[in-house]
Amino acid sequence: MIRIAMLGSGFIGRFYADSIQGQRSKDKIVSIYARKEHNAKKFADDYGCEHYTSNMEDAIAHPDVDVVCIALPNNVHEEAVMLCCKHKKAVVTTKPLGRNGAEALRMLKAVEEAGIFNGYLEDLVYTPKFLKAYESVKNGALGKILWAKSRETHPGPHSDWFWNIELAGGGCILDLGCHCIEITRSFIGKDIKPAEVMCWADTQVKPIEAEDHAIGLIKYENGAIGQFEVSWTFRGGMDLRDEVMGTEGTIWINNFLRTGMEMFTTGKGADYVAEKAESNTGWLFPVGDEVNDLGYNHMFTEMFRCVENGTQPKETFYDGYVVNAVIDAAYKSAKSKLWEPIKLEVWRGLEGVSKASNLVDYDADNYLVKEEMTHYGAKKLILKNKHTGKIEERILE
Amino acid sequence: MIRIAMLGSGFIGRFYADSIQGQRSKDKIVSIYARKEHNAKKFADDYGCEHYTSNMEDAIAHPDVDVVCIALPNNVHEEAVMLCCKHKKAVVTTKPLGRNGAEALRMLKAVEEAGIFNGYLEDLVYTPKFLKAYESVKNGALGKILWAKSRETHPGPHSDWFWNIELAGGGCILDLGCHCIEITRSFIGKDIKPAEVMCWADTQVKPIEAEDHAIGLIKYENGAIGQFEVSWTFRGGMDLRDEVMGTEGTIWINNFLRTGMEMFTTGKGADYVAEKAESNTGWLFPVGDEVNDLGYNHMFTEMFRCVENGTQPKETFYDGYVVNAVIDAAYKSAKSKLWEPIKLEVWRGLEGVSKASNLVDYDADNYLVKEEMTHYGAKKLILKNKHTGKIEERILE
Amino acid sequence: MIRIAMLGSGFIGRFYADSIQGQRSKDKIVSIYARKEHNAKKFADDYGCEHYTSNMEDAIAHPDVDVVCIALPNNVHEEAVMLCCKHKKAVVTTKPLGRNGAEALRMLKAVEEAGIFNGYLEDLVYTPKFLKAYESVKNGALGKILWAKSRETHPGPHSDWFWNIELAGGGCILDLGCHCIEITRSFIGKDIKPAEVMCWADTQVKPIEAEDHAIGLIKYENGAIGQFEVSWTFRGGMDLRDEVMGTEGTIWINNFLRTGMEMFTTGKGADYVAEKAESNTGWLFPVGDEVNDLGYNHMFTEMFRCVENGTQPKETFYDGYVVNAVIDAAYKSAKSKLWEPIKLEVWRGLEGVSKASNLVDYDADNYLVKEEMTHYGAKKLILKNKHTGKIEERILE
Amino acid sequence: MIRIAMLGSGFIGRFYADSIQGQRSKDKIVSIYARKEHNAKKFADDYGCEHYTSNMEDAIAHPDVDVVCIALPNNVHEEAVMLCCKHKKAVVTTKPLGRNGAEALRMLKAVEEAGIFNGYLEDLVYTPKFLKAYESVKNGALGKILWAKSRETHPGPHSDWFWNIELAGGGCILDLGCHCIEITRSFIGKDIKPAEVMCWADTQVKPIEAEDHAIGLIKYENGAIGQFEVSWTFRGGMDLRDEVMGTEGTIWINNFLRTGMEMFTTGKGADYVAEKAESNTGWLFPVGDEVNDLGYNHMFTEMFRCVENGTQPKETFYDGYVVNAVIDAAYKSAKSKLWEPIKLEVWRGLEGVSKASNLVDYDADNYLVKEEMTHYGAKKLILKNKHTGKIEERILE
Repeated sequence: MIRIAMLGSGFIGRFYADSIQGQRSKDKIVSIYARKEHNAKKFADDYGCEHYTSNMEDAIAHPDVDVVCIALPNNVHEEAVMLCCKHKKAVVTTKPLGRNGAEALRMLKAVEEAGIFNGYLEDLVYTPKFLKAYESVKNGALGKILWAKSRETHPGPHSDWFWNIELAGGGCILDLGCHCIEITRSFIGKDIKPAEVMCWADTQVKPIEAEDHAIGLIKYENGAIGQFEVSWTFRGGMDLRDEVMGTEGTIWINNFLRTGMEMFTTGKGADYVAEKAESNTGWLFPVGDEVNDLGYNHMFTEMFRCVENGTQPKETFYDGYVVNAVIDAAYKSAKSKLWEPIKLEVWRGLEGVSKASNLVDYDADNYLVKEEMTHYGAKKLILKNKHTGKIEERILE
Repeated sequence: MIRIAMLGSGFIGRFYADSIQGQRSKDKIVSIYARKEHNAKKFADDYGCEHYTSNMEDAIAHPDVDVVCIALPNNVHEEAVMLCCKHKKAVVTTKPLGRNGAEALRMLKAVEEAGIFNGYLEDLVYTPKFLKAYESVKNGALGKILWAKSRETHPGPHSDWFWNIELAGGGCILDLGCHCIEITRSFIGKDIKPAEVMCWADTQVKPIEAEDHAIGLIKYENGAIGQFEVSWTFRGGMDLRDEVMGTEGTIWINNFLRTGMEMFTTGKGADYVAEKAESNTGWLFPVGDEVNDLGYNHMFTEMFRCVENGTQPKETFYDGYVVNAVIDAAYKSAKSKLWEPIKLEVWRGLEGVSKASNLVDYDADNYLVKEEMTHYGAKKLILKNKHTGKIEERILE
Repeated sequence: MIRIAMLGSGFIGRFYADSIQGQRSKDKIVSIYARKEHNAKKFADDYGCEHYTSNMEDAIAHPDVDVVCIALPNNVHEEAVMLCCKHKKAVVTTKPLGRNGAEALRMLKAVEEAGIFNGYLEDLVYTPKFLKAYESVKNGALGKILWAKSRETHPGPHSDWFWNIELAGGGCILDLGCHCIEITRSFIGKDIKPAEVMCWADTQVKPIEAEDHAIGLIKYENGAIGQFEVSWTFRGGMDLRDEVMGTEGTIWINNFLRTGMEMFTTGKGADYVAEKAESNTGWLFPVGDEVNDLGYNHMFTEMFRCVENGTQPKETFYDGYVVNAVIDAAYKSAKSKLWEPIKLEVWRGLEGVSKASNLVDYDADNYLVKEEMTHYGAKKLILKNKHTGKIEERILE
Repeated sequence: MIRIAMLGSGFIGRFYADSIQGQRSKDKIVSIYARKEHNAKKFADDYGCEHYTSNMEDAIAHPDVDVVCIALPNNVHEEAVMLCCKHKKAVVTTKPLGRNGAEALRMLKAVEEAGIFNGYLEDLVYTPKFLKAYESVKNGALGKILWAKSRETHPGPHSDWFWNIELAGGGCILDLGCHCIEITRSFIGKDIKPAEVMCWADTQVKPIEAEDHAIGLIKYENGAIGQFEVSWTFRGGMDLRDEVMGTEGTIWINNFLRTGMEMFTTGKGADYVAEKAESNTGWLFPVGDEVNDLGYNHMFTEMFRCVENGTQPKETFYDGYVVNAVIDAAYKSAKSKLWEPIKLEVWRGLEGVSKASNLVDYDADNYLVKEEMTHYGAKKLILKNKHTGKIEERILE
């Protein structure tokens, strides 16, 4: 049994609580901190917490607390982490880790120096579909990974602080891109160093200083490409899709808007209230079990097992730091319009990996360019002579 | 915390165990019974059970056991239930409850006489998508329900006993139709009496005595129609779909083969082993989190909460009995080729509900038949005069 | 070049004209008949017809006319066909052929006696998807066909006469079921005799005498089952889907609501007018090329080629008659609640086909019930002993 | 009636011929040129051409020929176009127009100087889905267009010359990107000047000099972004998808792999041969009517109508030139790693368009950032004060 202090009683704190205390859980939130006491009290009532407070340190230091779960705005992560270090409490924190690489690095160093358990709550690498896809990729079903794309777009976040660049640290790249970067990095291989980033970003619609739409390409040392597409201007709900291309296969994941559940309603039916503001009549696409489908259940299961076993979870502050470093380079690129190198003061993966050859031998003298079955049932080959470089068509009957 | 005796160490017993002990559960399987001791031991090792046995009564009577979970072939359900009655243990059992209505009724009466908790493990009314859809239906988003269809087809069950009509009690109607009947009955309203059944069934492909393909229509007292489509001859995986039509809307659910996850593999990638025998190369459609998506998690959560709170779960032996009674009528109809009345010795819902009128008034003199927006932007109405019965087109500009 | 007289200037007449004179066509509508002269004139203006009239016989007898195309309400088909016979003009007619089998049979006999070309405009067996699927079925990709289902449901037809049982001859079974019956019959084999029908039909919502919702099963002599699901009460657009199950495969076709085109609109965009009245904001699912996707182009191409070549098209009045005979049995069954035999005074396919065996030999002594790859990579077989009838599991490693 | 000389008897020439002479066409291919006479003869036999030749000029100059259709490898386009100019024949040419902007510009100038009809056969802006989507965009259903993406990836082209950078002029950017660029440009507005390009390109898998995978971003003067994703290394078939985001809506188009037709086959069915080499068993996704669905029918319809009417088609050599200029910049960017300006010596659209403001007023003092319906039915607003810049949450109950 894990006893948790939840910092933050808002949208994400409640999502975490629904996951942690949902179903037949042995874990429990024993303390809740919110800036405003009445919010803390409300949360405590809803989730049966024994202790609530508007003093962050009180929640962290509470003697019953094993693990601190940070569900606060980005600008308060560092303060909260430092208090966990001070009180030697295991800490898990929502994404992104910091508002930038420097903040993230300070947090990383602090928790490691303090020797405390640290987990990075990147839920989207714990969705059931990601986990299944990842296993296939690891087992080689797709061959070598060439490209991985993740897209997260919706009509904008719920709370005011997201829209304030000072508090949030950035716009949709920081809010949504952090997910996409870790998803694509995981498919490509977390040992492979992300080398440089090219990013376009713009404020196309919203009256804000930060970007509301961005697209980025991340080049890895082995030649693979990660891609993110993020926006706060998308209309139609929350679009959450991943795509992976390998030499031997393809994966397409739709996590939200097209998951096999479709509803049409005229809206005349009695007192129905729709769950998304974008539309509540016509064709709607609800998700069955949001808490599970967004990865929260599998994420906390792994985190808390690791706390109990004294092992490291799949996602730590180190990963949060790498993601922040990639985002820093993306922001720089959006301004400089150049491919910007990713600066990783701390890097724990492979070094100096070079681009692999994926050439396929046809025979001693030829590479296979392509083979294809013709309409009339013969096999058509396109070959390249290794010596002359000549391309040739050959029909096998 | 609930301590469980699992009866049966096969396919379904392991699915249940994965759900009950998966993630951060406080519940535990403390005893496992299997016909063959080495199977019981293997299960005990895999799931950390303290006690294993090849004597069913020993598992049930074990002093640590709070709840008995029956995961046995159909022909042994009754024996197991009677032992639970004898030892006054709460019991939950896999579907179908009995091989026929008479068996089911005896079990229903026995558990109620014994005064023990009884739960019917119809997982498919606990899938996340069903739960979400059901809530919308209850809130009126679809208006009045006119028709509900459930389809479950696949290439046939895993274990030998299913194919033996004596042990199983029937073919795909009993194995798969029990799901479909309870799903559609739930959408239409569990208080509404199922009145009669028309069923076609045949053994089209397999060398067995039972049916391997069947389609049935269930007429309810309020005029709504339930439909099941079941088969053991389907090629392409497991097709698990529900559809609901109401006066104000539509729901389509795909629980398995098209859920937003798609993978293509040439099969040349190293040591990949596919999860379904139907194909392991080309386009594959894995499910993210089978245990959750098939409803096991939400089902056991409700069952065990009810055990703790002393309340009745949504699905009890009574529901299992109603389903068996519908199936009995379906088998009778498949032979007689007639609509067969459903005989319910025990019925606890509404009596004598008649068909509701869904007519829509347009004005004092006319019913609205249809309205539609024309290409040129005017509203076109089709009306029926209440007095003369005349149908008339009217254009509103 | 074919010169056409179009009878009827309404919804379906215009659809036909769009197909016949769309794109780079060499064919031409030279005469148009409508009950009201101003409608005929309007059509003539829109499609460049030289001759228009409110006298049906004038259009048919017009010396420039090669082929008469009947696009009239059901109750006028027979009169129009008889005039074509009188003037020895080739005739193609919209579906259904007659309001019942007797009408259809009279028309069939008349055109054959008159020796004129006759085509039955069942467009849905000419859709591009049907044609492609049908070719695969014919080539054996699905093995032997066990079941074919076709579903057509929408919120009701456009014109007043459809809602009048006297003019239309019936409700959604006649209007929509005629499509479904010919689609499923084509997949099962047009040589195979449809033997009997079981049909449920009801007037669930609309203030009409005819049925607004029906489901039917058609048993063929070879044991295959055709199924239709039709309704005028469906909400959400036009649902047009076919499914086929064979011993070796499956086909799923979606002709309308999910064809790979998805649009979300808030409705705030300037002067957008939606094409379907069910909803014009939120998620919409337009069809790319309705005239082609509903089969009109391929249908008229075949019809007119056959007229030129003096050959018989795939769909003739004979097929229209068979469909009407099936519908007659369906209506009878809906009342009698019995499986009703299909009465075919004229039948030109195979006689006395019996149910084929689909048993698969495993070896001399056993039938194969099922084979499946286990999680651990071994092949699991379920066999049935031919002599003892015993079912047995066997693992091949 | 249009009489055509087809230059090229290969894959694309036959596709064009199937479209031009398919169904009830009044147009005719009267002359066919192929490099090898036996190929020309074979084509003439298959399509009923009166004249065949291995001398290109003979086909073009043939007195019966009204329009020349170029279906030749990229390196021969210019020669063929110049001969059309010499003989004053109307010319339509397959994509891309040239191997680069310089070639394209020479062809553009030549046809305009010669005063001949010129059409650019970009079929993918004539697909039924594109045409429908484009109409909605034009009518304002999506508001202002912010981003348009087009993706075309498959396992590589059929003929040897594509793989030879000298003959083809490039790799998948030239082969596939030309489609994507014109699609996205059309959605954004063909009057809006494409300003600069950032492109990543690599040869990841194939033994060739040209790129086999590329991603590009095209910035337009009004701030909109076009995106292309192209590859010859994709596994799973041909992936052909477009996505558009506007301030008021979204469009998703799937042109090929998921169009509402799905087939599973074990492959045991008799003599079935699948149409795509990537897989011929398991789940397959055929397209109903390739010739129509890829846009050929609507394209030739417009082209030939314009020839007859003496008007300009939607796609001319000028458009082909713009596309080539964008591709030139993309290739330059892939090498320089910079955003490269697009050099348009000829530009006929708007000049100096600046980025539009999409800000939404809430009231005199505030911009609306976002509105959303809360779980409890109240409207939540996020506003930005126009004067102070402060972001504020407001709940309307």
